[in-house]
Amino acid sequence: MVRALTISLGVHMNQIIRKVIIAVSLLWVCEASGDLRATGDLGVVIERETASVQIVNTSKPAVLSRIEGLGDLSHASVVFSRDQRYAYVFGRDGGLTKIDLLLDKIDKRVIQAGNSIGGAISQDGKLIAVSNYTPGGVKIFSADTLEQLAEIPASYGEENKLSKVVGLVDAPGQHFVCSLFEANEIWLIDAKNPREPSVKKFKDIGKQPYDALLSPDGHYYAAGLFGEKGLALLDLWQPEKGVEPILEDYGKDDEQLPVYKMPHLEGWTMAGDWLFVPAIGQHEVLVIDKRDWALVKRIPVAGQPVFVSGRPDGRQMWVNFAFPDNQTVQVIDVKDFNIIKTLQPGKAVLHMEFSPRGEAVWLAVRDEDSVMVYDTETFAETARLPAYKPSGVFFSDRANRIGW
Amino acid sequence: MVRALTISLGVHMNQIIRKVIIAVSLLWVCEASGDLRATGDLGVVIERETASVQIVNTSKPAVLSRIEGLGDLSHASVVFSRDQRYAYVFGRDGGLTKIDLLLDKIDKRVIQAGNSIGGAISQDGKLIAVSNYTPGGVKIFSADTLEQLAEIPASYGEENKLSKVVGLVDAPGQHFVCSLFEANEIWLIDAKNPREPSVKKFKDIGKQPYDALLSPDGHYYAAGLFGEKGLALLDLWQPEKGVEPILEDYGKDDEQLPVYKMPHLEGWTMAGDWLFVPAIGQHEVLVIDKRDWALVKRIPVAGQPVFVSGRPDGRQMWVNFAFPDNQTVQVIDVKDFNIIKTLQPGKAVLHMEFSPRGEAVWLAVRDEDSVMVYDTETFAETARLPAYKPSGVFFSDRANRIGW
Repeated sequence: MVRALTISLGVHMNQIIRKVIIAVSLLWVCEASGDLRATGDLGVVIERETASVQIVNTSKPAVLSRIEGLGDLSHASVVFSRDQRYAYVFGRDGGLTKIDLLLDKIDKRVIQAGNSIGGAISQDGKLIAVSNYTPGGVKIFSADTLEQLAEIPASYGEENKLSKVVGLVDAPGQHFVCSLFEANEIWLIDAKNPREPSVKKFKDIGKQPYDALLSPDGHYYAAGLFGEKGLALLDLWQPEKGVEPILEDYGKDDEQLPVYKMPHLEGWTMAGDWLFVPAIGQHEVLVIDKRDWALVKRIPVAGQPVFVSGRPDGRQMWVNFAFPDNQTVQVIDVKDFNIIKTLQPGKAVLHMEFSPRGEAVWLAVRDEDSVMVYDTETFAETARLPAYKPSGVFFSDRANRIGW
Repeated sequence: MVRALTISLGVHMNQIIRKVIIAVSLLWVCEASGDLRATGDLGVVIERETASVQIVNTSKPAVLSRIEGLGDLSHASVVFSRDQRYAYVFGRDGGLTKIDLLLDKIDKRVIQAGNSIGGAISQDGKLIAVSNYTPGGVKIFSADTLEQLAEIPASYGEENKLSKVVGLVDAPGQHFVCSLFEANEIWLIDAKNPREPSVKKFKDIGKQPYDALLSPDGHYYAAGLFGEKGLALLDLWQPEKGVEPILEDYGKDDEQLPVYKMPHLEGWTMAGDWLFVPAIGQHEVLVIDKRDWALVKRIPVAGQPVFVSGRPDGRQMWVNFAFPDNQTVQVIDVKDFNIIKTLQPGKAVLHMEFSPRGEAVWLAVRDEDSVMVYDTETFAETARLPAYKPSGVFFSDRANRIGW
């Protein structure tokens, strides 16, 4: 129709009309991107039940948009691209979704496995690795296109069975590290050649590693053991020394806890000389001396701790709890290991995320349909944002951190 | 609009022309902002002699633009806004310039003093503080508008003389900390009420503090002393304990070095249990145990060290040198304190900045008119960008760091 109109006008109207069409598209594009948006203070809130995420701004604070269609977000985790423009969401159903934080939309999405448990982004930001239960193994993707670059089946033993892979983290030197649940192994993956990664395997590291953590400097990788007490420690500065057992009194007691009752190691925090750990099945937070892995102190708390999260300056530890105490949050002063505050934000505080320099903490309070923001100095609630059953909060400064 | 056009044709030509003008302006605006740009991987390169800065992208790597008219950039330093959209450049001439990293232009610029030596951004990102020589004191500005909110003259003694202010850093709890050169004092500024900041003064902390550093967790503030040996240490977790002397053998020897020959403390790095320090007037890097401030090791190096900069994972220390050895850079492996690499990037390596997760380091090589990028694993030069006599490199992830 526009073309017909142009012809009938005869003059140079067609050019004018083209400009108008460009104007409208540009208006649309510019509006789609909103005001010019920087990406240093953005975050993502996981809404598990509605398979959606919110994009949030932590300076205002405000919800910017909601993105839907992300599949099963149970135990979902998130990493961020090097420029902090994209969030990669790892879903339980094997879905890997790349979200554009500037355009408020899904950039790409693939179903890369049948059952997945988490992922990591490489040191240079170019690779995404995902750890899978089914089929057991690690897959490596281009962070840009989500093209699959490599598949590393977690095969073990004489029959080459496939093990579930857990505790996958990035490490310096373009490495990934992960643990194999049934195989009792830790794998150090060198992804410098991403289409042909090399794997150094550490065998018989302890029974059934079920989760792991990396120290904030990328120096130590520790895997929790489901099949026995203690943890398996790999010193990444000296991998030739092999894996050593530590904290041999920590872990399962006689009672056979199912895996999902075991505290995930992302709930552990290293700060200064200390490692803060939720005790299993106890109303205690354990303080461990990082230099010799000895237990220094047991801090009595209000319930069974889930996450012990450190304020970025390491001065405070915030603790949330399992049901029936999950309406409570307690704050430990690291200076003297005393509890300095007990808060009751609301029902089902599932996750906590600190602002990069620690002045605020955001709580996902599922049963209140709210994300609550607290001042970490005054302990006052400073903002409350609506969210559908929020289960996790992740900020874009994670892009700069090792092993997150 | 196409519909309106169909109806009115020649009658409403003025409207059409207006649309065209909007189209062109929009094209211009969108082009000015370039492609949609995220801010997590941006940086600023200081070009002292031309009073300009470059905006760079660290993922590509590439120069995005050059901004001119920044005044005297000797000893210039840079902090970044919370959203990483803006860089605040502190010039020696008292100029405070706010640069828009998305629109490639100066957003605001004020001359706030006669002679200035550095600045900091508050924990919540809302305040900019500047430390001035003339008139001696600290000024606090709105990070948004650069409106002056408070002036704190550095007056001391019975005559209320004004002291030069040095070593200004941000600290947790919306604090700033600084040192007063002539007054021999350290000031802890609480800026929660920015128009009426309160100041806690520590007096007689040692003779002539000339610079200072904050530990990466915001726990310790240490000021170097020009008038005597040693450093003055303030434990910010326990300020009631007052300031204590440490490293009492460190510092000036009998020879009276001028201030500008004293190594600036931003060249010191805390990593793990260690503090790495350039020795004064010696070809040595000192390793100090952070727990008792005892000297652990002297590492012989290729010249008089200026900066001892830690890779973000703390595994490597990169050292540059004063003239006549400033074409050399050495790398120390923190594992065993051995020098594992000696590089000759080019003449006058003045500054080094690591990418957030440490895979790369950028060197400002003044006399080669180049910024050189090195892979920290292979030590290969991976990129070289042109710059006019570059003297400093600052990346936007500093927004997330305490005390930078």
